[in-house]
Amino acid sequence: MLTVRAARADDREAIWAILEPVIRAGDTYTLPRQMSRDEALAYWNANGHEVFVAEEDGRVIGTYFLRANQAGGGSHVANCGYITASDWRGKGVARAMCGHSLERAKSRGFRAMQFNFVVSSNERAVRLWKSLGFEIVGRLREAFLDPSGDYRDAYIMYRLCECCRAKKREEVSEAAVSQSRQGISRKMLGWITF
Amino acid sequence: MLTVRAARADDREAIWAILEPVIRAGDTYTLPRQMSRDEALAYWNANGHEVFVAEEDGRVIGTYFLRANQAGGGSHVANCGYITASDWRGKGVARAMCGHSLERAKSRGFRAMQFNFVVSSNERAVRLWKSLGFEIVGRLREAFLDPSGDYRDAYIMYRLCECCRAKKREEVSEAAVSQSRQGISRKMLGWITF
Repeated sequence: MLTVRAARADDREAIWAILEPVIRAGDTYTLPRQMSRDEALAYWNANGHEVFVAEEDGRVIGTYFLRANQAGGGSHVANCGYITASDWRGKGVARAMCGHSLERAKSRGFRAMQFNFVVSSNERAVRLWKSLGFEIVGRLREAFLDPSGDYRDAYIMYRLCECCRAKKREEVSEAAVSQSRQGISRKMLGWITF
Repeated sequence: MLTVRAARADDREAIWAILEPVIRAGDTYTLPRQMSRDEALAYWNANGHEVFVAEEDGRVIGTYFLRANQAGGGSHVANCGYITASDWRGKGVARAMCGHSLERAKSRGFRAMQFNFVVSSNERAVRLWKSLGFEIVGRLREAFLDPSGDYRDAYIMYRLCECCRAKKREEVSEAAVSQSRQGISRKMLGWITF
């Protein structure tokens, strides 16, 4: 059974084994491809990062960190990075970790989650985040240099927490009522609910 | 005469005098309002930040840093933070610093510049960056908590370097020719040039 738990000191080797191929590939994370083990672990476990692992039958098969994306007036927006072990991709591990992180973020009082840099060619990730309620709110033209030498766009993806989304739905719903009084059907406004 | 030059070790007090009121106000930068002098200077002079000051008649009246916004495949996109001394606002200091930073970024080989978090209520900044060729490429809903207690949207602003912009213009121009062959006038496409 897949479980997600806080990382412990003795997970470091397992975490590095997950990070290394992704860093070396250089096609999704904006990290130097030659980053050393110690640099990578220092990045993953940086100050302010809360680190978790996904585990199946005692084997660590994924890891993620949760942090505030900004300080001060921006500290209510969370940010995460997720990586799944290469032989466990496409099996719901990232989905489980993201679900866990949304719960964790909510319990810590975050009001939104932001992904700063989703490479547009990482279509599986884009699809997954969309299915979990994230929207593409920005496009950074040619902001990513693929190892193949091509410049790719990157997306900023964003998701307000359920309660804020619910509030927005109410507002939309009120707007719909007011609009329907003006002869516009509720159905026409369906696309702006989220 | 306003000049912009690399910061020196003996500029630290002048830089802190510029940063402090902005940090304490907490309405533009996402930094903790109670940040100490040492924390603020450590942030401004962080590893990988190249720091400059704007000077008028020997007085430091503004400062900015330039850095890569991401590492690895995102390291060709620059990021800057600019602050003008409070009694020198509205006098072209930020414009001069931004112009300097664009030149400096270009000479260092950056291909674009990104501002990650421009608070939407900071209208003067938004106007200024737009006038310098930046576009709003993303909106982060309620990502900033104003000291007044209101949530405000924040913008991501982005600018490709002149050479990449020129390339885009050529592409647009070619598209315009191709479109005009299909009976659509060039004028109609004017809005997509930038």
